[in-house]
Amino acid sequence: MARIAPLSGFPEWLPDGRVVEQHVLDTLRRTFELHGFAGIETRAVEPLDQLLRKGETSKEVYVLRRLQADPDAVDSDKQLGLHFDLTVPFARYVLENAGRLSFPFKRYQIQKVWRGERPQDGRFREFAQADIDVVGAGELPYHYEVELPLVMAEALGRLADVGLPPVRILVNNRKVAEGFYRGLGLDDVEGVLRNLDKLDKVGPDAVAELLGTECGATPEQAKACLELAGITGSDVSVIDAVRALAAAYGAGTELLEAGLAELGALIEAAAVRAPGVVVADLKIARGLDYYTGSVYETVLVGHEGLGSICSGGRYDTLASDGKNTYPGVGLSIGVSRLVSRLLSAGLVRATRGVPTAVLVAVTSEEQRAASDAVAAALRARGIPVDVAPKAAKFGKQIQFADRRGIPYVWFPGEEDRAAGSVKDIRSGEQVEADAGTWAPPAQDWWPRVVPGV
Amino acid sequence: MARIAPLSGFPEWLPDGRVVEQHVLDTLRRTFELHGFAGIETRAVEPLDQLLRKGETSKEVYVLRRLQADPDAVDSDKQLGLHFDLTVPFARYVLENAGRLSFPFKRYQIQKVWRGERPQDGRFREFAQADIDVVGAGELPYHYEVELPLVMAEALGRLADVGLPPVRILVNNRKVAEGFYRGLGLDDVEGVLRNLDKLDKVGPDAVAELLGTECGATPEQAKACLELAGITGSDVSVIDAVRALAAAYGAGTELLEAGLAELGALIEAAAVRAPGVVVADLKIARGLDYYTGSVYETVLVGHEGLGSICSGGRYDTLASDGKNTYPGVGLSIGVSRLVSRLLSAGLVRATRGVPTAVLVAVTSEEQRAASDAVAAALRARGIPVDVAPKAAKFGKQIQFADRRGIPYVWFPGEEDRAAGSVKDIRSGEQVEADAGTWAPPAQDWWPRVVPGV
Repeated sequence: MARIAPLSGFPEWLPDGRVVEQHVLDTLRRTFELHGFAGIETRAVEPLDQLLRKGETSKEVYVLRRLQADPDAVDSDKQLGLHFDLTVPFARYVLENAGRLSFPFKRYQIQKVWRGERPQDGRFREFAQADIDVVGAGELPYHYEVELPLVMAEALGRLADVGLPPVRILVNNRKVAEGFYRGLGLDDVEGVLRNLDKLDKVGPDAVAELLGTECGATPEQAKACLELAGITGSDVSVIDAVRALAAAYGAGTELLEAGLAELGALIEAAAVRAPGVVVADLKIARGLDYYTGSVYETVLVGHEGLGSICSGGRYDTLASDGKNTYPGVGLSIGVSRLVSRLLSAGLVRATRGVPTAVLVAVTSEEQRAASDAVAAALRARGIPVDVAPKAAKFGKQIQFADRRGIPYVWFPGEEDRAAGSVKDIRSGEQVEADAGTWAPPAQDWWPRVVPGV
Repeated sequence: MARIAPLSGFPEWLPDGRVVEQHVLDTLRRTFELHGFAGIETRAVEPLDQLLRKGETSKEVYVLRRLQADPDAVDSDKQLGLHFDLTVPFARYVLENAGRLSFPFKRYQIQKVWRGERPQDGRFREFAQADIDVVGAGELPYHYEVELPLVMAEALGRLADVGLPPVRILVNNRKVAEGFYRGLGLDDVEGVLRNLDKLDKVGPDAVAELLGTECGATPEQAKACLELAGITGSDVSVIDAVRALAAAYGAGTELLEAGLAELGALIEAAAVRAPGVVVADLKIARGLDYYTGSVYETVLVGHEGLGSICSGGRYDTLASDGKNTYPGVGLSIGVSRLVSRLLSAGLVRATRGVPTAVLVAVTSEEQRAASDAVAAALRARGIPVDVAPKAAKFGKQIQFADRRGIPYVWFPGEEDRAAGSVKDIRSGEQVEADAGTWAPPAQDWWPRVVPGV
């Protein structure tokens, strides 16, 4: 057999790492469901022309070919590629099923996506995303732009007790930026945003120069843009600061005011529903050719270098079929990157890598059925149980449990099959027990995810 | 935008279909965990040479290419393909992590797999599989060959109350077949099995002829093979029948006896632990070049035409790294095919397609925060809640709930924000309620999956 080696960019976890990932996924799913999001899954592939229709070749799509397809023949199949996000497939799903869905349609979707990027950049080629979106038919009320980041804040907040650092959701509004730039007299809005997006990388002086050379900004206009990008805060004083800046530069516009009203409403609601989590940050850009209202990025406090773990925004045209336009707002969590950091930084750990709470020992192979019966009785009451693989010496069977982190070993009784004794192998304490009534304490019942210390 | 059409062979469900699929997946997962199987996921891709190492080109592998890879340059990346089952990736995972796993290692794995087969054959190109396997290092006790089909029987049995028809697990043992054929003097064991596998398609006369022309069997030998294949039954009398047949033809061998002992133990244990589910069927073959002991197929009673929904067996060499050999036994459920049949035959349905149990009405947009507060109070107690998208007339808001199957609509009180009234929109009954204490009845709390009728 060929040498086995991990594939760079395709992360896999050992069973205890998977316990952590599964807990994260279960927590997200449960939170999304509590907020009324319906779960869907879409196929992993889309026609290549759909994947590329926004000019998304930068995403390094993986194209599929059937091994036995004749390379010289014109393949009757449409060319297919693996999806690189869950937004393109969702837009297609909405159009395909528009007549069978009720709008506004709230959905969550947790699936793998693939991008053929260089794994040495610390990026994965295969990773799980967890998305929530609300999409309307024709219209979508603004209040969803407030609701969705708060759902994500709640979902991530529910992971705090297992060791997830606090999150900070940075929000901006495209109307604010565009309104301000246009008020200044800068009409190349995308150019300005693209250059301001480089702020953290190249610094303000370089950005000011780029705004001049690439967007025709005067030094005064560039200064104004940089001042706007510098505004940040978690209460509505941010709105006043932007308004004052606009007044100082004579940059007030209707669009700016509309954006400030939206941003203010978001900040205000967030201060009540998720105090301290949402921060207005006027330099957040996020490919604003796509988004048309609120935009979101999320950092783990203390792990800002990891970049945004949950991003999204409002788009006026998620999909369109000529007859209807479907506006939406959504956010996407990069689950694999998050879990990878939680594990590699030792922030969280699983109490064990197997579900098993109890190992039933086997006295002799002839008596295996007795041990199976004990196991069945415990499982019937929802207790995860394994039976020892061999009727080895009890010391060996205890070692089998110990190596897997199984906390209890059950020794079947000689006479009454259901009666026996159960030993907590951590403390050594052993008590008489009946398989029809005994249960482990709640904290030992299932593997738990706990802070890594 | 290009025309949107479903891709043949890539099934997707509407939200209420996904509720059914999710229930099936959750039930399988929970059963596997109760039996101590650890959950893992492997990456979707394997190096192409690994995927093909058993000569598996019949599986129509999908090969990946990065869109921007230079087609003329020698790609430094290894050629990758999408996995076509979960056994090949699991074998690789075991070898890659052998030093970090404890053996026997029990794992379950629920993931999508891909095969580029003709979808017009009623086969899917993308489908979910749910696998359980136990793998040992060097050795694996026989009792796992009894345990694993019974775990699957239990898992599928837990779906009976939602409308899954009863299952019948057909079992055979490769040693029985091989021992009998060799005892007859037929040494081309694989040839004989391959031809007997055609029994249902071409009938006994054609098979007898094929056994003669292809495997050199005399009419007498062919007759014996067909008689063996005709033996079936759910108690140990099957063992006696095989033994009598072997005696009549003078075909008894040690291998046959070893196989009969194993098959008998399986039938006997199954009669106690899953009465009526497991049936010995001496014609089950299942690619016996791969399996070395027990083999399993599973049919839905009344839907036998669907073929096997859960198959597997014992293999002495799941993986080998030159130093160690890893024998295993496992079964795999074709979840997509099962769910597809359940939905298309109307055997099961979801009580609703959204998680939401309660829609909180909005009196006016100014009062939306009051409705949000009611929703938060209900969610804090684990009740899935949505808030109406618009402060429309209450009739319209009730219609919004009705269209989605949401059973309850909450009307916030005018004075006390938490107090209000809640209406069961099915019966029309409306009662005063407090958001801090009211809860829906258990059967309305989450969407349920119920028999289809």
